Amino acid sequence: MQPAVIILDMANGYHWTPGSYGYELVARIRRLKDAAHAAGVPVVHVNSMRRPSDNLGTRANMSPGTEAAGVIPELHAVDEDTIIYKRFTGGFSHNDLDYTLRTMGVDTVCLAGASTDNCVLWTAGEADQYRYKVAHC
Amino acid sequence: MQPAVIILDMANGYHWTPGSYGYELVARIRRLKDAAHAAGVPVVHVNSMRRPSDNLGTRANMSPGTEAAGVIPELHAVDEDTIIYKRFTGGFSHNDLDYTLRTMGVDTVCLAGASTDNCVLWTAGEADQYRYKVAHC
Amino acid sequence: MQPAVIILDMANGYHWTPGSYGYELVARIRRLKDAAHAAGVPVVHVNSMRRPSDNLGTRANMSPGTEAAGVIPELHAVDEDTIIYKRFTGGFSHNDLDYTLRTMGVDTVCLAGASTDNCVLWTAGEADQYRYKVAHC
Amino acid sequence: MQPAVIILDMANGYHWTPGSYGYELVARIRRLKDAAHAAGVPVVHVNSMRRPSDNLGTRANMSPGTEAAGVIPELHAVDEDTIIYKRFTGGFSHNDLDYTLRTMGVDTVCLAGASTDNCVLWTAGEADQYRYKVAHC
Repeated sequence: MQPAVIILDMANGYHWTPGSYGYELVARIRRLKDAAHAAGVPVVHVNSMRRPSDNLGTRANMSPGTEAAGVIPELHAVDEDTIIYKRFTGGFSHNDLDYTLRTMGVDTVCLAGASTDNCVLWTAGEADQYRYKVAHC
Repeated sequence: MQPAVIILDMANGYHWTPGSYGYELVARIRRLKDAAHAAGVPVVHVNSMRRPSDNLGTRANMSPGTEAAGVIPELHAVDEDTIIYKRFTGGFSHNDLDYTLRTMGVDTVCLAGASTDNCVLWTAGEADQYRYKVAHC
Repeated sequence: MQPAVIILDMANGYHWTPGSYGYELVARIRRLKDAAHAAGVPVVHVNSMRRPSDNLGTRANMSPGTEAAGVIPELHAVDEDTIIYKRFTGGFSHNDLDYTLRTMGVDTVCLAGASTDNCVLWTAGEADQYRYKVAHC
Repeated sequence: MQPAVIILDMANGYHWTPGSYGYELVARIRRLKDAAHAAGVPVVHVNSMRRPSDNLGTRANMSPGTEAAGVIPELHAVDEDTIIYKRFTGGFSHNDLDYTLRTMGVDTVCLAGASTDNCVLWTAGEADQYRYKVAHC
């Protein structure tokens, strides 16, 4: 088994702040990330990215290179991790996530992040369709 | 017809300097880009990007966010343009180029950049497979 | 608006028989298909297909060209429709559905078929990611 | 190394007949296919397929299920092989070739068929972009 940890949408633009709804998730993902690093398991942050031409109305924040699209400070440093941007709901949408996992030799993805009933769910389905083994961590 | 201009691999990492082989291309692309802007035609810069896990040997430069992966200064400013990174040879490889052109309503791509017999050729083939009308500008 | 009707997994291999669970769906889809034909709206049947190398255990029925993979007789004739095979859960998985809809100029998909909480749901998500307008019919 | 042999466009619709241009290719591919079978290497036939909605003018032959789209008799039987249809020039275009090779655990493709300077070339490029090792057999 060659696993990777995929952390979804832990981005500044979603306003994760102490006391906000679901903030306890941040500490759990911090521990997961640290454990992955300790075990030599690659960590991939997948955040949303929107372009002006997307025409997605209120969802049209998180432009390339903005603070909003970046990983929240609680999960820094990201220097040894991979950062990939998804263009819609699923973590594999219109980007190089599958390609990059393939070059890493990864066959199993451990998914974490937000939201369980939306982006994490869709990403699990996509990973399954690409035939990765999927765990929700 | 809804065209877009796609400019391939005019990146700092390829060492475009006055007098170097093919440098006259830069001025021609500058004129094409200015004409596109004047006509309200979107301009998309597509540069190569490599990750450490790519295992591509000597091709493993142009990491995300590096100077090498950026558009050459002769073709700045890029603020009103779209910048997309390709992960292999073709402009559509493992990225959101097709998705972004679709959201723009583009049906015709005018290709320019380097090299005609490599990335431009492969991008033309990919664009054809996605059923864009293709012009080499 | 350029719609198409997408009918999912109404295949012989799922044993649709009068009196079986959900069989009333068949008559509703028959009416939808007839209405689509009457209105000149293209109908696309998307059924599952598995290959021996898929290694999907009990899901490994519905091989190419088999009776099991075919559209149920209640929804025949299919001569003027398009038949596409999906390779996993979603209607767009590893096939030419997006490409074919694109060549048809379709921008809106009306989804029907089985099962609402599985293949139809995943197909709706995929269609959304490709930026089709989605209706569940 | 886990190889597969990919045989491109050896289809009835291209009128391979003894004495016609390039017909000696057929015997070479027959030997390659027999050698692959003898070695337990999977063989994948990839032929073109067009739909009425493709709007490709004179290229719009080879509809699903037609004789024209089938493998030429000189390369039968195909029962133990995989048959996949490509929707445009490249062998990976809008189909399940990559997915199927992945499920097979294939990492190396040996390409044969027609034409070397067109479909075989494009398929080599696509295979390279998906990071298969590529041989032209």
